Amino acid sequence: MSGVEVRVLIRPKEGILDAQGKAVEQALPALGFEGVDQVRVGRIVELVAQDQGRIEELCEKLLANPLIEDYEIEIIDS
Amino acid sequence: MSGVEVRVLIRPKEGILDAQGKAVEQALPALGFEGVDQVRVGRIVELVAQDQGRIEELCEKLLANPLIEDYEIEIIDS
Repeated sequence: MSGVEVRVLIRPKEGILDAQGKAVEQALPALGFEGVDQVRVGRIVELVAQDQGRIEELCEKLLANPLIEDYEIEIIDS
Repeated sequence: MSGVEVRVLIRPKEGILDAQGKAVEQALPALGFEGVDQVRVGRIVELVAQDQGRIEELCEKLLANPLIEDYEIEIIDS
């Protein structure tokens, strides 16, 4: 069994302060980058699962903090 | 000008220890998840840029550490 490749994108929920995103945004002008905004920083978790059905449970229990983060599950065709 | 929506995926380079990925992988059996492996944890940065041409430079200088991380730039059509 080779399993299915899964990509989980985890982002701060709308309305939750995204400290890393803000930090990047504030650093940009000093580095000479203008015209970049709405920066959001999140995590990406890639894994290979034998049982695709439990990925959501895995996100809720281990990968994301559902109180403050949203997650999005992408199945990658190879 | 509304700008272009960009998504940058930043991952540990092949061969570089992915401590977070290993931690997730080791936590799984205790939580009752079997059959999940090749876990890699990285960062995702989403932003809106007026000038698409400088995104690579932005990755090199600010978003990623090119010594230990690879990055992938996706332009999101909306």
